[in-house]
Amino acid sequence: MDHPILDQSACSLVDSMRRGELAAAETMRAFLDRIAALDPKLRAFAYLDPDSALAAAERIDHARAAGGAPGPLHGLPVAVKDIIDTADMPTEFGAEIFIGRRPDRDAVIVHRLRAAGAVVIGKTITSQYALFVPGPTQNPHDGAHTPGGSSSGSAAVVAAKLAPVALGTQTNGSIIRPASYCGVVGFKPSLGLLPRTGVLRQATLIDHPGVMARSVSDAALIVDAIAGEDPNDSLSRNPMASMLDAALGDRPLPRFAYTLGPFESRAEPATRQAFAAFIASLPIPVDAIVLGSEFVAAEATLRDLMSAGVAESLGPDIDNASAKVPELVVQLVRAGRGLSGAEVMGTWTRRDRLRASLIERISDYDAVLTFAASGPAPLASEGTGDPIFATLWTLIGAPAYSLPLMTGAKGLPVGVQAVAAPGRDWELTRAAAWLMRAAAQ
Amino acid sequence: MDHPILDQSACSLVDSMRRGELAAAETMRAFLDRIAALDPKLRAFAYLDPDSALAAAERIDHARAAGGAPGPLHGLPVAVKDIIDTADMPTEFGAEIFIGRRPDRDAVIVHRLRAAGAVVIGKTITSQYALFVPGPTQNPHDGAHTPGGSSSGSAAVVAAKLAPVALGTQTNGSIIRPASYCGVVGFKPSLGLLPRTGVLRQATLIDHPGVMARSVSDAALIVDAIAGEDPNDSLSRNPMASMLDAALGDRPLPRFAYTLGPFESRAEPATRQAFAAFIASLPIPVDAIVLGSEFVAAEATLRDLMSAGVAESLGPDIDNASAKVPELVVQLVRAGRGLSGAEVMGTWTRRDRLRASLIERISDYDAVLTFAASGPAPLASEGTGDPIFATLWTLIGAPAYSLPLMTGAKGLPVGVQAVAAPGRDWELTRAAAWLMRAAAQ
Repeated sequence: MDHPILDQSACSLVDSMRRGELAAAETMRAFLDRIAALDPKLRAFAYLDPDSALAAAERIDHARAAGGAPGPLHGLPVAVKDIIDTADMPTEFGAEIFIGRRPDRDAVIVHRLRAAGAVVIGKTITSQYALFVPGPTQNPHDGAHTPGGSSSGSAAVVAAKLAPVALGTQTNGSIIRPASYCGVVGFKPSLGLLPRTGVLRQATLIDHPGVMARSVSDAALIVDAIAGEDPNDSLSRNPMASMLDAALGDRPLPRFAYTLGPFESRAEPATRQAFAAFIASLPIPVDAIVLGSEFVAAEATLRDLMSAGVAESLGPDIDNASAKVPELVVQLVRAGRGLSGAEVMGTWTRRDRLRASLIERISDYDAVLTFAASGPAPLASEGTGDPIFATLWTLIGAPAYSLPLMTGAKGLPVGVQAVAAPGRDWELTRAAAWLMRAAAQ
Repeated sequence: MDHPILDQSACSLVDSMRRGELAAAETMRAFLDRIAALDPKLRAFAYLDPDSALAAAERIDHARAAGGAPGPLHGLPVAVKDIIDTADMPTEFGAEIFIGRRPDRDAVIVHRLRAAGAVVIGKTITSQYALFVPGPTQNPHDGAHTPGGSSSGSAAVVAAKLAPVALGTQTNGSIIRPASYCGVVGFKPSLGLLPRTGVLRQATLIDHPGVMARSVSDAALIVDAIAGEDPNDSLSRNPMASMLDAALGDRPLPRFAYTLGPFESRAEPATRQAFAAFIASLPIPVDAIVLGSEFVAAEATLRDLMSAGVAESLGPDIDNASAKVPELVVQLVRAGRGLSGAEVMGTWTRRDRLRASLIERISDYDAVLTFAASGPAPLASEGTGDPIFATLWTLIGAPAYSLPLMTGAKGLPVGVQAVAAPGRDWELTRAAAWLMRAAAQ
């Protein structure tokens, strides 16, 4: 169960496999063995076919032996959230009405993973429709607690070392919060850096794929392989430079600020204290940024964008089977349908104003540090936790990391969120990696 | 009236002024003299203050004499459509209810023009609200004909040599069509290349600023100076390379295709013949692309996006003064308000599908040639002409040129439109410049 492969970083595994010192099949076997031992209790996988995953890894080994050039993710097992399409595995959105759904083709980001040599190890549990109602996944640090949502399985898998990295998604707080609760690195790049074709659509202005990993450089390695324009996603963009280069560089010193944000009162007192102590402990100056009540509107603005989007994308399917759909989801569709076209356009306008105003406040910094969550993971009986500390940054399409830098009650992990202006993924990645190195010293 | 300055390109004027061989004031005086002679009949300017324009040019000369480095548009007079904000001139949208409106600040593209050393010579006539109801501007080739709309004054000013270049905007066909009718080069870059902050908002997914010029390289010179990200415009992007470099380069040979598009039947028979003859005359192979009836939906999709957008942006002002607003504009607002939020989201989805499908068809080519307008400029009494041949490309945010390469009845000019996949502005500019050079030989 404690095979040394499990403790290696994704970067190091890929390195060994590319050099031919480690077989993809051997790597896959180590993770599959651990899944077999732990997942019956953890419940992080929605779909797993160990024989197929192993066969796919063996094909990677054969291709290499036959002289094929190894890709940048050669042989790497990657777990994929179950709202991201895979042509060879079901993709069911955690939803009863989509049981048995088999997409025709891979999502673009999955296609790019495989083209880079990665192997999809299995599909991870999501909250139903990536919305409110949790799946069965436990928090690896304490089974009575939630792993967070909606990328529950992806965070748990990485924290429990059932896979080195995983893909997740965030339309409000679905990467940052579970990463915080599970003590892993979560990276949600700027809107558009990772295309959404083949990912369950909730609302195109705020739907963000992202990565769960155990280090900033592992997250950056994955983003480098899957980022960039896609004709089917009109908001997609090419990255300006390699995230992995950013993560590995260490000069010059990044410029940091911190903010308690407009929602400070929703953070637990112990978390506020821990965050203040963390900021005070940093060996460099950190400016303070005040984000006042004018930003509170972000919560309602994001909710309206999400409800209008979900009404359009899921409404018709839900109409056909509403008895099988959780009441909260039906209500969200109903709320979306209550909005007029002019109201939706107005929501977008308000979002753009908040975005410009936030960019003005934060663009002098490579990273602005803030809360990733209100505290450590709540009890599973209390739901998947409050996404509010991700809301502002999701709404404006900003890049965001959750970094496992604090500890809360019962020794449960608590993340520090690092954000930057939209498009500043490179600078933010450099700053996040710097921060993790500083904390390790 | 026929001062040699008037016939020089913008590139050549800037060159002479940057080298100190020509004063900005002398340039300005030549254009102001011509305006004084011709504009009383042409009616292309909505606002003109010759003394202030001359004073601004003199300040440019003084700054240079005092040792200031000349900018890339040093001393260049630029006319600006009256829906683009200028802090020192009224910006009235051609609309009775906005008479006397004085913006607080320049639009971002105007700010960048001035920062590059350009001088705003005056504001040009637009259709009311940049919508259906024309202003008084005549077509310089024949005063009984429309210059097209809504960038009527900007096209007429450049065609009549009242200014070397002008800014316009296009939400459906408002640059390509007037450029075609007036026989000038119109360039509408990809959505996002020119930011819209300070430009009358109709619908953010389809609002495009652009340039009227007498050559591709003059248009490229202006775009280079004003393109790029703006925090207040969340769809804005940085260009990948210099458009002027593209216009001046001539290797390798661009790849061309042509299409008659899904709206061929709305082109006049003579225009269809002229276009076929033009394609046949090209000294290189030109592939044919068929765009069938599945693209007809673009017209209704764009109309819905526009009506929802106008309902949001202009609705409140119009409610307060509807007696002074043309009935067609009031109807557009009413239509927009009739759309639900889910319908608006659905419109965006349909637009994205059309976009992906078009990109797939055209992305092998540097330029796809098609109609710019249904024919030469109609009589002014018939309105501003049919924008349909720009609709597809505006809807998907593609870059588009109108190039003055054909002639219709009474010797009136007719443009050839050249388009490319969104983001391929550089390749398209290179191809457009190549085409103009080939036609001149």
